[in-house]
Amino acid sequence: MTDPRPPIKVAVLGATGAVGQTFVRLLKGHPWFELAEVAASERSTGKRYDEVTRWIEGDMPRAVTGFMVRACDPASVTAPIVFSALDSSIAGDVEAAFAAAGRLVLSNAKNYRMEPDVPLVIPEVNAGHLALLDLQRARRGWTGGIVTNANCAATMAAMALAPLHAAFGARRVFVATMQAVSGAGYPGVPSLDILGNVIPYIGEEEPKIEREMQKMLGVVAADGVRAAPFMVSAHANRVAVEHGHTVCLSVEFEREPTVDDAARVYREWKGASAVCGLPSAPEVPLHFFEHNDRPQPRRDVMRGRGMTVSVGRLRRDPLFHLKFVAMGHNTIRGAAGGSILNAELLVKTGRVGAT
Amino acid sequence: MTDPRPPIKVAVLGATGAVGQTFVRLLKGHPWFELAEVAASERSTGKRYDEVTRWIEGDMPRAVTGFMVRACDPASVTAPIVFSALDSSIAGDVEAAFAAAGRLVLSNAKNYRMEPDVPLVIPEVNAGHLALLDLQRARRGWTGGIVTNANCAATMAAMALAPLHAAFGARRVFVATMQAVSGAGYPGVPSLDILGNVIPYIGEEEPKIEREMQKMLGVVAADGVRAAPFMVSAHANRVAVEHGHTVCLSVEFEREPTVDDAARVYREWKGASAVCGLPSAPEVPLHFFEHNDRPQPRRDVMRGRGMTVSVGRLRRDPLFHLKFVAMGHNTIRGAAGGSILNAELLVKTGRVGAT
Amino acid sequence: MTDPRPPIKVAVLGATGAVGQTFVRLLKGHPWFELAEVAASERSTGKRYDEVTRWIEGDMPRAVTGFMVRACDPASVTAPIVFSALDSSIAGDVEAAFAAAGRLVLSNAKNYRMEPDVPLVIPEVNAGHLALLDLQRARRGWTGGIVTNANCAATMAAMALAPLHAAFGARRVFVATMQAVSGAGYPGVPSLDILGNVIPYIGEEEPKIEREMQKMLGVVAADGVRAAPFMVSAHANRVAVEHGHTVCLSVEFEREPTVDDAARVYREWKGASAVCGLPSAPEVPLHFFEHNDRPQPRRDVMRGRGMTVSVGRLRRDPLFHLKFVAMGHNTIRGAAGGSILNAELLVKTGRVGAT
Amino acid sequence: MTDPRPPIKVAVLGATGAVGQTFVRLLKGHPWFELAEVAASERSTGKRYDEVTRWIEGDMPRAVTGFMVRACDPASVTAPIVFSALDSSIAGDVEAAFAAAGRLVLSNAKNYRMEPDVPLVIPEVNAGHLALLDLQRARRGWTGGIVTNANCAATMAAMALAPLHAAFGARRVFVATMQAVSGAGYPGVPSLDILGNVIPYIGEEEPKIEREMQKMLGVVAADGVRAAPFMVSAHANRVAVEHGHTVCLSVEFEREPTVDDAARVYREWKGASAVCGLPSAPEVPLHFFEHNDRPQPRRDVMRGRGMTVSVGRLRRDPLFHLKFVAMGHNTIRGAAGGSILNAELLVKTGRVGAT
Repeated sequence: MTDPRPPIKVAVLGATGAVGQTFVRLLKGHPWFELAEVAASERSTGKRYDEVTRWIEGDMPRAVTGFMVRACDPASVTAPIVFSALDSSIAGDVEAAFAAAGRLVLSNAKNYRMEPDVPLVIPEVNAGHLALLDLQRARRGWTGGIVTNANCAATMAAMALAPLHAAFGARRVFVATMQAVSGAGYPGVPSLDILGNVIPYIGEEEPKIEREMQKMLGVVAADGVRAAPFMVSAHANRVAVEHGHTVCLSVEFEREPTVDDAARVYREWKGASAVCGLPSAPEVPLHFFEHNDRPQPRRDVMRGRGMTVSVGRLRRDPLFHLKFVAMGHNTIRGAAGGSILNAELLVKTGRVGAT
Repeated sequence: MTDPRPPIKVAVLGATGAVGQTFVRLLKGHPWFELAEVAASERSTGKRYDEVTRWIEGDMPRAVTGFMVRACDPASVTAPIVFSALDSSIAGDVEAAFAAAGRLVLSNAKNYRMEPDVPLVIPEVNAGHLALLDLQRARRGWTGGIVTNANCAATMAAMALAPLHAAFGARRVFVATMQAVSGAGYPGVPSLDILGNVIPYIGEEEPKIEREMQKMLGVVAADGVRAAPFMVSAHANRVAVEHGHTVCLSVEFEREPTVDDAARVYREWKGASAVCGLPSAPEVPLHFFEHNDRPQPRRDVMRGRGMTVSVGRLRRDPLFHLKFVAMGHNTIRGAAGGSILNAELLVKTGRVGAT
Repeated sequence: MTDPRPPIKVAVLGATGAVGQTFVRLLKGHPWFELAEVAASERSTGKRYDEVTRWIEGDMPRAVTGFMVRACDPASVTAPIVFSALDSSIAGDVEAAFAAAGRLVLSNAKNYRMEPDVPLVIPEVNAGHLALLDLQRARRGWTGGIVTNANCAATMAAMALAPLHAAFGARRVFVATMQAVSGAGYPGVPSLDILGNVIPYIGEEEPKIEREMQKMLGVVAADGVRAAPFMVSAHANRVAVEHGHTVCLSVEFEREPTVDDAARVYREWKGASAVCGLPSAPEVPLHFFEHNDRPQPRRDVMRGRGMTVSVGRLRRDPLFHLKFVAMGHNTIRGAAGGSILNAELLVKTGRVGAT
Repeated sequence: MTDPRPPIKVAVLGATGAVGQTFVRLLKGHPWFELAEVAASERSTGKRYDEVTRWIEGDMPRAVTGFMVRACDPASVTAPIVFSALDSSIAGDVEAAFAAAGRLVLSNAKNYRMEPDVPLVIPEVNAGHLALLDLQRARRGWTGGIVTNANCAATMAAMALAPLHAAFGARRVFVATMQAVSGAGYPGVPSLDILGNVIPYIGEEEPKIEREMQKMLGVVAADGVRAAPFMVSAHANRVAVEHGHTVCLSVEFEREPTVDDAARVYREWKGASAVCGLPSAPEVPLHFFEHNDRPQPRRDVMRGRGMTVSVGRLRRDPLFHLKFVAMGHNTIRGAAGGSILNAELLVKTGRVGAT
């Protein structure tokens, strides 16, 4: 499609935090969206964005430095598309208020992810789940809506599993993650906790991975998403990596594939065709490595400008059928970039014009 | 038992490398063993130990600095107990020569580990496997013998699994490791490969973990060890940690235990009583953590002077029965310290006097 | 001297933070001092120590787990010796209140360090400065007193400079530091700021280094300490090291020494004889390395149980006379351990009984 | 100038190592140069480039994967411009042979750097030194020539000093470096040496920094370069950073500037105008930071695609006049990128057509 003219105004809620900053960074120069407003908690409202923001990565885009930080409510923020990087402690009410006020909310918070009428979407994987918006509006009386993206580790695992699940039907999935510190935001993980160390625990992470993978690979029914019929067991670990979650998977399928069968599926998989050509869509959504020591976060995390998930080490599993490793950028593909891609897909499929 | 008087002379083969140095370090001030000889490859023989050794950790014990490095053959090395830190490329012939010459070889190399008549021993776990020495001598015509210890990651996993396997019978075991760089020796892993990174591959590591766990938890039969009847699937990863391999496990048992059942087993487990009180035996062979964010390598690796394996995060597994995390010092418990403890057990059980 | 009987009761103010915890750890099993009370901010008072403390390193000593946290005032804390790990925002008033109430306060805060009547002491270097306590009491009407120890980077630099200054008279000193993250406390430095990075700035650190070195190497006069007549220029940097501040120094002297002259001074230096044999005094206060790649924080920081400062790379300087590298443990020698050694010296020299 | 048509063929000597790979990476898509040949040591000659190269960073450019590796002599390599990433143990003879054979050699090796008739060039700083090529050819009877770039740490220091030296005349310069591991090549620094550590020593580094800064900021005379009349003292340290050397400087000048004077010089400095617009020239050769905690290697190293050197923390020095911090990419600006920029300048100034 051609670029929308004029560009669509968008806002970022929670714009001063780590994920909020990633939104601001990725929206710089976006061909369809114009970042028009930033909003944050009361502590920052009414002040200049560059005064209240401890910018973490690269340089703050010049265009936003002088933005006045607005309050997180639909009266203060007017953009029709709203990217939410809000903390879950306040995301519930704020996002609902925006949806009720006719805005499309692209949320990174966990609050609505598991609601049956709220799409939890990786565009290449389950674009069809966006149809839930109709159910959501009907049920809740909203004129806008909420579309969520998944926990960052669940995103890598679900995306790597999707092509094989489609081809062979996953039945049991074992997941062990090694997650980057940027997943915990800023200031996030203290250096004294992680330098030369592994922390084999991330609060609430494992149930999220286990449930969100099922929902994303599930199917839409009249009353919401029906979870995919596989079971997941997750081990979540924090490691001394800046960006990039690495995930080891062992999978048992309905129909046992050979390693070659699965490699062929990976090489041929393109993801949902509707996504192809969207501004934030990577040329290759899943990069398949033949080398046995890849993917690696430091070396592969920026593949596809952070939107490509890499898969490698595909081999037989002595207990289940196959094992492999997936890795992707947690704050781009697994958070802000994923939300922006969701918004692009909504625009392309005409769901924004309706608001 | 009282300390042997006079102390027993011991030698270290491959004494200039990383594991060899750990032997030298741990033998300093040992109450039973006197490090009398060091041996290494041809490049170093005839030279002073401190001239040919790039010492890695702490200070080189003063007593060995002036040792002349000997050749790795039973004519040049006279000690009755020989600790082998040899590379597997030469360990096969050299260790056999020492065993044939009546010496007890405590080996860290992989060469003989899977031979049915060679004990692969973690003293607290399968001290009984030392009985294989009789079969080994009978079969091979050796007057000495070879006792091996396991791959460092297999050691942590086997030790953490042992009490539960004894109580409930393990059937299927998933293992995902995050291994320290010291496991690769020195110079080992280049810093450009691991700073801020994860390498999801360690050559030959996964099959070792899968097979050695089965052997160590197996039972001795007339013709050698019968492997334990559980299956293992391992994912091996390298992380930016100095010392300490962290291992995530998910286990299915013959008789499903509750989390409380398993916790009770861990709290009560003491390991083989023959080991208790040996000079290198830790007071607590398995430390059981209730905190949900432990064990961690940097914080827990030196527990029991590096000989304690820590276990934590015991919880239900949605696919199998239980999941948990184990961590231990890879070059102490998982290598040199484990060998020394094996030697102590051999002395205590009278198997050294026999040679 | 023989151990005082009964042991002297001591308290730690600010006991829940990183330096406070180091006090608690180092006081475990102390032969002279019995940790009898812990105090912290209002948020924690009245609660159990183990409930309000996120313990960072090793295990919390069992004896203190059930201690009730007291308020930081002389009415709530009764011990005659008080170790202060308080933040500078409150240390000023609190420490003065304790000193006025007859207690000896060993302070790590910056508040009183540069007061002319307050000793800023590294026992081996300027034990004589403790005589300032008389002036302090006379001036301020206190029956107790405050003794401070220096900024952690200033401590390493001053200790390494002290023997050469005594022998040759320092005139100009250039200092560049590479400081460990534990110097910033806990949670302290966010991992996103320091993983694979250097931060060439530590707030307020450089003036502290420049002034405190002058004071510590100064001489006591009737009206307080007269600063040493050398000038210092400091560059302070944060690096991805857990413990251990490394300091590069270039020094110009009144009387130019050769490298051999200086090496001889280092080899012979023992520090103030009054310190020798104190419970926390290391056998070797300054370890002098001949190897050209030492000292290194990870390898040398625990020398002398963290109380030894290591010096190495002594060589000619093309601009000044000599350059060299110093390194020591910032939270032990540079903070809690230094304070405890100060207290031991006060006890030995009879300054505690007087209170 | 317009792009040369057809593009000029270039070769990389030592193409399989770390710096050689950086050349290959940076030459991909170069508008003027076409990488036509790769050469390496005997061990690799005659084999495919992708078979003998352990590629370190990103993906190997597809165009070179099938290149046959040639021998490092002018008979096997035909390109008129030759980038040398050779080890100094062989660079001396090989580079001379190419220069004698009429090729322009852009060298990263130390062998010829300090020869009075060999340009040691940072284009923005001392482009005029290229005039030495005439003297070099006359003296040595070469039809080609050798142009070198400096030690990577000397490059950052010299570039940061250049504008101030030009304006105020440097007299004495203190330098303390914190250098990235990629400066040591691959495999280079073992991870066991640098994880959580600082190594206060880099072999031969300090004299290089001290002398090369003087030469680069010197002036061309009839018989070669006359070194700048300032003295340098360097402290070189290795830190756990992937890319980016950080350098602390304290400088005394002929004419003492205020901090504002110096800041103005930095803000206005553009470097030699001949460099402006060259394909590898960054828009801003020196980025001047006002923030007090910058530059930082991880955050600023890729500024100007790795070709910008960042300067910050400009402040008064208590001993000399000013102190500040410089940081730049050691394998791009400090090695391969610097060489390529040198070659571009030679092309633009007509010195390549002459060969």
